[in-house]
Amino acid sequence: MEIKIALAQINVVVGDLSGNARKIRETMTAAERQAADIALFPEMALCAYPPQDLLLDKAFLSRCRETLEQLAKATRETLVLVGTVYEEAGKIYNAIAVLQHGKVLDIVRKSNLPTYDVFDELRYFSPGSDPRPVKVSLHGKSCLLGIEICEDLWDKRYEVKVSELLAERGADIILNASASPFCRGKFRERMELVREKVAKTGLPFVYVNLVGGQDELIFDGNSIALDKEGKIAAHAAAFREDLVYCSFHAGIAKEQLPEANADENGELRAALTLGIRDYFVKSGFRDAIIGMSGGIDSALVAALAVEALGAEHVYGYAMPSKFSSSHSLKDAEVCSRNLGMHYDVLPIAELYSQFLETLKKPFAGTSFGLAEENLQARIRGTILMSIANKKNALLLTTGNKTELALGYCTLYGDMCGALAPISDLNKPEVYRLARYLNESYQYPVIPENSISKRPSAELAEDQYDPFDYDITAPLVDDILYRHSDIEALMRESGDPELVGRIYELIRMNEYKRRQSAPGLKCSAKAFGSGRKMPLVNHFKLH
Amino acid sequence: MEIKIALAQINVVVGDLSGNARKIRETMTAAERQAADIALFPEMALCAYPPQDLLLDKAFLSRCRETLEQLAKATRETLVLVGTVYEEAGKIYNAIAVLQHGKVLDIVRKSNLPTYDVFDELRYFSPGSDPRPVKVSLHGKSCLLGIEICEDLWDKRYEVKVSELLAERGADIILNASASPFCRGKFRERMELVREKVAKTGLPFVYVNLVGGQDELIFDGNSIALDKEGKIAAHAAAFREDLVYCSFHAGIAKEQLPEANADENGELRAALTLGIRDYFVKSGFRDAIIGMSGGIDSALVAALAVEALGAEHVYGYAMPSKFSSSHSLKDAEVCSRNLGMHYDVLPIAELYSQFLETLKKPFAGTSFGLAEENLQARIRGTILMSIANKKNALLLTTGNKTELALGYCTLYGDMCGALAPISDLNKPEVYRLARYLNESYQYPVIPENSISKRPSAELAEDQYDPFDYDITAPLVDDILYRHSDIEALMRESGDPELVGRIYELIRMNEYKRRQSAPGLKCSAKAFGSGRKMPLVNHFKLH
Repeated sequence: MEIKIALAQINVVVGDLSGNARKIRETMTAAERQAADIALFPEMALCAYPPQDLLLDKAFLSRCRETLEQLAKATRETLVLVGTVYEEAGKIYNAIAVLQHGKVLDIVRKSNLPTYDVFDELRYFSPGSDPRPVKVSLHGKSCLLGIEICEDLWDKRYEVKVSELLAERGADIILNASASPFCRGKFRERMELVREKVAKTGLPFVYVNLVGGQDELIFDGNSIALDKEGKIAAHAAAFREDLVYCSFHAGIAKEQLPEANADENGELRAALTLGIRDYFVKSGFRDAIIGMSGGIDSALVAALAVEALGAEHVYGYAMPSKFSSSHSLKDAEVCSRNLGMHYDVLPIAELYSQFLETLKKPFAGTSFGLAEENLQARIRGTILMSIANKKNALLLTTGNKTELALGYCTLYGDMCGALAPISDLNKPEVYRLARYLNESYQYPVIPENSISKRPSAELAEDQYDPFDYDITAPLVDDILYRHSDIEALMRESGDPELVGRIYELIRMNEYKRRQSAPGLKCSAKAFGSGRKMPLVNHFKLH
Repeated sequence: MEIKIALAQINVVVGDLSGNARKIRETMTAAERQAADIALFPEMALCAYPPQDLLLDKAFLSRCRETLEQLAKATRETLVLVGTVYEEAGKIYNAIAVLQHGKVLDIVRKSNLPTYDVFDELRYFSPGSDPRPVKVSLHGKSCLLGIEICEDLWDKRYEVKVSELLAERGADIILNASASPFCRGKFRERMELVREKVAKTGLPFVYVNLVGGQDELIFDGNSIALDKEGKIAAHAAAFREDLVYCSFHAGIAKEQLPEANADENGELRAALTLGIRDYFVKSGFRDAIIGMSGGIDSALVAALAVEALGAEHVYGYAMPSKFSSSHSLKDAEVCSRNLGMHYDVLPIAELYSQFLETLKKPFAGTSFGLAEENLQARIRGTILMSIANKKNALLLTTGNKTELALGYCTLYGDMCGALAPISDLNKPEVYRLARYLNESYQYPVIPENSISKRPSAELAEDQYDPFDYDITAPLVDDILYRHSDIEALMRESGDPELVGRIYELIRMNEYKRRQSAPGLKCSAKAFGSGRKMPLVNHFKLH
């Protein structure tokens, strides 16, 4: 039997049921026109993922059901598999609705409910039990579809191995609807897993992933279909909507594609650009404000914002103080000019003096220190937020992961912002991506000096960042990644004392991150909703 | 058989294993001296609750185990029941360790793992299964202890009814170790539930709760023991550590106490005072900074801070602008003087002008609006944070729940702060608690004018809060409490259009709350970790 499947990789918006349904309807009509037997949509395509506590609202659940029923009415010959929330007997399920000929034929429930890192599905969903293939009729012949949802594939930590079980129970093919967020290396990991399942089950495997940004998360698409021999039958685009098809004859792809090569920097650029763009578009904003320090972080954020929003929608401001170097101002200007964005200079020296004048009494008898340094950052934050309010724009904050971990940033100062595009990139990764962008532009759009100079916050005389980033940044990442066995890391690092010191800095600065802007997740362990540490926390390694 | 039980209601610190163990040891020694047969400690007493992602760290788990073993060695005749995390075969459990004669006799695992609101226990723990009483020897006679943990009592949403099961299986008594956070009415609710279990099981019930503040949560203590007839055998203090005893003879209390009367305002005062004090003490701070506007919110926060920290540790600052009324400055001063706290005036008019001067170009051609209003709030936030940095103090933010819901507050302005003491009180509750405090002082410490005047942010000419708080505030609360059926609320409210409008304001301002200071939870549904709403969210009721 031959079977043609549409991989309907769409970008939907949390809660926008009618908009999402419209997009699903258009896509399924296109698939119908191409005579697809099956159109497979991502997990929760109808309401977008993750709807979080909207799932606790009956009104939301009943609108989802109504929208699903309307969608079902619009189906014809092509079998439509669409992810949605499904309520039954007071329980709610993360489900795939099987639609055809104007009806809801079946509901498949997700078995494995991830509740770790950014996932909290057990807060909402009951698990499906006893997964079985769904019997459908295609070309008048019956076919057993092994339908599963996202984590049903990632079964290492679960007792139920859904893919294998579906195969044992006679499935002709495995169809996985996912909302799997991007992080570096994730596509390769997914491919390996799908290959493994193909090898184990001897079945073709079609994997459709959500695409688009939702708050901290970036769904990368990258939907893929493998035939029963592990050959690539289809591969949808990364980081944009796509509708591709695969056809299997007796489980073998009619057309085989070459292996996809992932380029790590290219992926990161596309991911962050999508994350910025979707946050703006889906929030109803067009313009971004950025404080341009002349340093590498703000230069990179500006370059990404220009790619995401267009140069005419990006406004950069340099705000020099008496501690600012002349090269900073120059680098900020050159970068802004290169990117074609708006640029202006707003010096803060007088505001700084005026604050010190106002604070004369409470500051009496003290000497220059942290308060004065932070004050400069907060003056800048206030200026930028004032402009953002005036222009109805969003401020982008430019901190990287290493700074955020160590607390080398000012709450309500440089931490001000609606979104933190590079908060999950460590300092060396910031440099790497900046160099990559320059190479791709074939021009040092980000000034070479911003890349090569010694990093400085320029909040005091002769101040330079007190870290050797080449040592500190990977250690910070290791501490986050290897949180589960920090003592093994200490033993292996060769410098347990340094690991302990950095662990301690991370612990002490939790309070800053609690009030930080949402940051785009692009590593296996980002700060934000996937890492829940107490503020009051006396746990020490020594 | 007679049995004497110590209700060991202690205040412990997350992660401070050695400090907590020391406190447990001292308490169990005191109980031993009083010839208690059993000393019952709260849930997770060893590591404090909730340790969150510390539970994912092997080092943390192994330190907990070591500390438990040391603790066991110190036990003698008195049977000690102490809450801890327990790891076994790669799974971790929320457990009670049963210690006696230098040994760990048994481990009881929590069956019902709450994963809703502020709780996310399924992120960490595996459930215990098949709960059975623990057989112990007291006075040479064997006794079956029905040991359960917190949510095992709150069994409505769970299939396993632990208390009943333990009774069926022969328990002589139910012992519940809890870490149950305070909210208004919680003690009454708990009492009803315990009474219900006593009626169902015919057994005495001893309930020991944690006490103390941990980030957003305030554990109220209020440990209680009921005999098998439902008479009160012991009742520990609310909102402070306590060690009380009860004795049962054949399940009947040897001494019966009268019913406790909870006074709602008194509870709230004690809860918030404890929440503030513990956040400061456990974070290593002594001094608080407050912006005194002359309004009711800052006056109430100042009064609570003075009760929590002592007047000498509270610094109030009035920061008048050209829009400030003379009564505001006077009310701020009178309140501060009444409370005996530090007070100073730092006018912001010149800073405001200087900012407008600096912002001349980006503001060109625009008229006074939101940007200028927010600017004033941000100048004040910057001043207060500068002083907090200089004095190594924590800034308290003074926003109430109604404002926070509606977005009537400025991010990085009046929202600056390490802790939000009254962010879970609606505006009428703020007035009520202020009046209550004045009555209890028998003097209008909070100036009558702050209570009676029309609320205003004073960020523009003739500006007054655009809400009728008597209507809006309860509606906001209802929308949060009745989130699960917002349409029923609309039908019942008599003004569905207004409900819709407020729902929409709450939705649109989610981004502000994402970056807000942690707030002390004292209602059944607070903003913060117990309410997870997406930022990008297009779900609308109309």
